[in-house]
Amino acid sequence: MNLRYAIVGSGAIGGYYGGRLANSGCDVHFLFNTEYEHVTQNGLRVDSVKGDFVINPINAYHSTANMPKCDVVLVGLKTTQNHLLPQILPPLLKPDTLVVLIQNGLGLEAKLASALPHQPIAGAAAFICSSRVGKGHICHADYGAITIGMYNGDCQDVIAQMKVDFEQANVPFSIATDLNETRWRKLVWNIPYNGLTVALNTSTDRLMNTPATRALVTDLMNEVVDAAAVCNAVIEREFVEKMLTMTDRMTPYSPSMKLDFDNHRPMEIEAIYSNPVKTALAAGYHMRKTEMLEQELRFIASKQ
Amino acid sequence: MNLRYAIVGSGAIGGYYGGRLANSGCDVHFLFNTEYEHVTQNGLRVDSVKGDFVINPINAYHSTANMPKCDVVLVGLKTTQNHLLPQILPPLLKPDTLVVLIQNGLGLEAKLASALPHQPIAGAAAFICSSRVGKGHICHADYGAITIGMYNGDCQDVIAQMKVDFEQANVPFSIATDLNETRWRKLVWNIPYNGLTVALNTSTDRLMNTPATRALVTDLMNEVVDAAAVCNAVIEREFVEKMLTMTDRMTPYSPSMKLDFDNHRPMEIEAIYSNPVKTALAAGYHMRKTEMLEQELRFIASKQ
Repeated sequence: MNLRYAIVGSGAIGGYYGGRLANSGCDVHFLFNTEYEHVTQNGLRVDSVKGDFVINPINAYHSTANMPKCDVVLVGLKTTQNHLLPQILPPLLKPDTLVVLIQNGLGLEAKLASALPHQPIAGAAAFICSSRVGKGHICHADYGAITIGMYNGDCQDVIAQMKVDFEQANVPFSIATDLNETRWRKLVWNIPYNGLTVALNTSTDRLMNTPATRALVTDLMNEVVDAAAVCNAVIEREFVEKMLTMTDRMTPYSPSMKLDFDNHRPMEIEAIYSNPVKTALAAGYHMRKTEMLEQELRFIASKQ
Repeated sequence: MNLRYAIVGSGAIGGYYGGRLANSGCDVHFLFNTEYEHVTQNGLRVDSVKGDFVINPINAYHSTANMPKCDVVLVGLKTTQNHLLPQILPPLLKPDTLVVLIQNGLGLEAKLASALPHQPIAGAAAFICSSRVGKGHICHADYGAITIGMYNGDCQDVIAQMKVDFEQANVPFSIATDLNETRWRKLVWNIPYNGLTVALNTSTDRLMNTPATRALVTDLMNEVVDAAAVCNAVIEREFVEKMLTMTDRMTPYSPSMKLDFDNHRPMEIEAIYSNPVKTALAAGYHMRKTEMLEQELRFIASKQ
């Protein structure tokens, strides 16, 4: 089975994974917004710790209206743009097209499913240090694995073929049995580092090397594990230590929210903070420090 | 009874109250540090919403070794300097001299009492918007009442005379029956506004006018009321609304910690945050958001 892929949001995430797939010979069609003119002339450049490459020529489009229908749509947009998906996606969709949200946060698939109730939808978590450093230019600094989990629909064959395609493209690919757990696990890292690097205007390594913020990062991680537990996602407590150790070993890194803030883009407060806090509260657990970080971020966003 | 007053730390607080007392004819002796030369020549200038005045000549000293023994010592130092009190105070002390800590935070009197176990000690909370704006120059923008409570010793006559002196000096003066409660009540205001204006680099009015931080301020206040309750200080819940309303009506204001931070002085994190968090935790209540603010402030202080 040859899958045709659409990449909606060809930035740090969509551009990297779409680029990897295209570079290994898959049939990939990229939606660009402001970068469209640039990539049609210069291609998509990926500087990667796993080897640099350029996709040129590239199947680039400025509107989904001109794109072919695809088997898999990989959404790499910021969640702050997800309200646009019901208008953007339809030209790409056959009844069995799988839409995969490679995004951070909670509640995204449910919201999309309410707009596209009959479409197969999956979520994916990317464990990657990647950023857009210029027009059509992505820098991949570390990691890169992706974990996918179905939200609704039955796409076993498609996902099995995706695994083949991604692994041929040199991307470690896991299939999660529980998307909810995958989402919460990702939040264990995202909730402390995304918000604190913005609120304290710093980087991951400085948070880790100062005892007070190392303790705060740990508190926030434990809060996410506790919240996950009441939301039917069992995360072993050792996962916190594992994330701390992983971050200690990471190249000092600006998480996506810090890059968004520094570049005056909207921050993904709703998906990464408000939705988890609300979901946990509805299940009976109050994520107090996470909520405080959300409140601080909303203040900071109000001054952006 | 004529009381002789010593002012240790003649800044925004000590300088204001000492200045008021001297201006109304009391016998007041001021300890200055870096401002000593300036005030001996120019006096102490207080620009006050209740009327400006200058104390010139002034009983100014550069060391307590040269000061007379006094009946009352008003300590207006920053709590970050309290470790110096056991060396600074003795020349001023008779056996019955009352030492009054006009400071913010918790645990200050206990610490001083362990160094001066036989000395009468009181604490006082100043409800005042006052700041040092230049050498020997204090600006009093709003409020001004002071509440005193005994920590140990029996000084009814002295405190009764202080009430007469302060009221003649146009300072509203209350005598608290429970210093612990007075300290916790003051923290209801200090914990949200001092730390958040630093952490979010803002002013009280912007915190109040942004829904997310207005909610956070309210959460922190409620946390202090809950912590106070387990520490035997009963504060009625309506006090939170009262403090919010008072702050709404205040001139936009930089709390003392914000002024300290902006002027590269040490912040009173220990007294205002760490001691209350520790005390409440020992009594069985975890002040989570207050603890998070403490952690953020310690990170910020580590970069100062």
